[in-house]
Amino acid sequence: MAVTLRRRVDFPMIDYAQVVFYPEYFDLAHRFFEEAWLEICGIDYPTITQKMHLGFPAVRTESNHIAPLRYGDDIVCTLWIESVGNSSITWCYRFENQDGLLCWDAKVVTVCVNMKTFEKQSVPQELAEALRNCTEH
Amino acid sequence: MAVTLRRRVDFPMIDYAQVVFYPEYFDLAHRFFEEAWLEICGIDYPTITQKMHLGFPAVRTESNHIAPLRYGDDIVCTLWIESVGNSSITWCYRFENQDGLLCWDAKVVTVCVNMKTFEKQSVPQELAEALRNCTEH
Amino acid sequence: MAVTLRRRVDFPMIDYAQVVFYPEYFDLAHRFFEEAWLEICGIDYPTITQKMHLGFPAVRTESNHIAPLRYGDDIVCTLWIESVGNSSITWCYRFENQDGLLCWDAKVVTVCVNMKTFEKQSVPQELAEALRNCTEH
Amino acid sequence: MAVTLRRRVDFPMIDYAQVVFYPEYFDLAHRFFEEAWLEICGIDYPTITQKMHLGFPAVRTESNHIAPLRYGDDIVCTLWIESVGNSSITWCYRFENQDGLLCWDAKVVTVCVNMKTFEKQSVPQELAEALRNCTEH
Repeated sequence: MAVTLRRRVDFPMIDYAQVVFYPEYFDLAHRFFEEAWLEICGIDYPTITQKMHLGFPAVRTESNHIAPLRYGDDIVCTLWIESVGNSSITWCYRFENQDGLLCWDAKVVTVCVNMKTFEKQSVPQELAEALRNCTEH
Repeated sequence: MAVTLRRRVDFPMIDYAQVVFYPEYFDLAHRFFEEAWLEICGIDYPTITQKMHLGFPAVRTESNHIAPLRYGDDIVCTLWIESVGNSSITWCYRFENQDGLLCWDAKVVTVCVNMKTFEKQSVPQELAEALRNCTEH
Repeated sequence: MAVTLRRRVDFPMIDYAQVVFYPEYFDLAHRFFEEAWLEICGIDYPTITQKMHLGFPAVRTESNHIAPLRYGDDIVCTLWIESVGNSSITWCYRFENQDGLLCWDAKVVTVCVNMKTFEKQSVPQELAEALRNCTEH
Repeated sequence: MAVTLRRRVDFPMIDYAQVVFYPEYFDLAHRFFEEAWLEICGIDYPTITQKMHLGFPAVRTESNHIAPLRYGDDIVCTLWIESVGNSSITWCYRFENQDGLLCWDAKVVTVCVNMKTFEKQSVPQELAEALRNCTEH
């Protein structure tokens, strides 16, 4: 099932136009992605990167900005996994504000690499299964 | 014709994996976008936003990460415009490193808004023409 | 009494040297500062800035980096107020990691301004009293 | 003699109050610091960090915000070195806008470390001499 995480909009995310600066959405998505590992796989991301030496760089992103987030809003992130291939994982994000207004959705494809060599590798079996179970519904 | 702009990779762009953090690419794209206005339209972006009160929030993004950028690299950005609608503009970005290696490409659709009200408006005629002339070749 | 707030170290805070990038400490301090208003004064910072139109730009900072924060750490911030003048406020920060190791301390002097005109003004009386009560011990 | 470097204020540096967000000043200072190595020592900072495996984490900072920087401004940074100890270096920064208005000054003490072990070490002799020559006047 999808993971739901929440953060408030902080002051430094706001730009000149008084809304969250658009590259901040992917920065936020990455922070939610980090937090989600513990819930999805039972292993925190520092362990994934520092002990298991795995990295998940993005190879493809797409997103839609549907409504702006403003200072004072909360971001309610729903995160789930669309598919897990041999080394690729497709992550889906939906950001709503505190009133349930859909603000942003995105899809990010990552590839599993060895953090030291940056070479592609298979997603370890025990992670792949847990990730596959993190479906939208 | 496309605009070419150059920046070096700065230390704060680098992440734990020793490569440019992926949300930084859109942050960089925005900085190149800002710089490009003067060359494309003969008007700098502070004038566009502060005097003409126009904003260009992103409504759709897509990107491909083809090769990592590392500390010590330069980013050579080629930027051009694919299409200009009534209020929407489709911006294309191609980032290469100093050796001509393609690292990232992206497409960002923006919508023209009044910076004060955030309401959609037409791209002013004199800007639209200059933007349409900024083709890839 | 001092306010205690907690955040985990996120991936984007880490630099090439595998520690939290030093300008991130003030960025973090600002996010804790924002969160602290509700606890200290009973008013959240979006209300302070957007409804009461008050701003608190920094005019003076000093800090000591005592030990690095790394990926996987939590930041435990203790925040208190050393003094409140007519328009100036002196904020103190102490960052420890999850094991109580002192990592950073800082002092930031802010000046109260009208957010629209950026002109200096007195700290409103009801805020000044609550702020004065937020002592270290 | 002091080094002078210049960058324009980019959109993402601006905060809700329409001025450069104060933690951005140290982020900017670090980018100027990186650029200054080539001019001061004839060696670029990627070489210092990646080939010579030296790091220069900040151990102490202090700064004064004298006037705000706004969107459309250029930042003219004057950077010089106040003193070089065995492993510590005291860096001075002065940021003016394009009209020569003093906006910010700062002092940052760094300690020289081995980038791999993060252990303190002496500033190599050839660097120390060049750094000592980078005086204010």
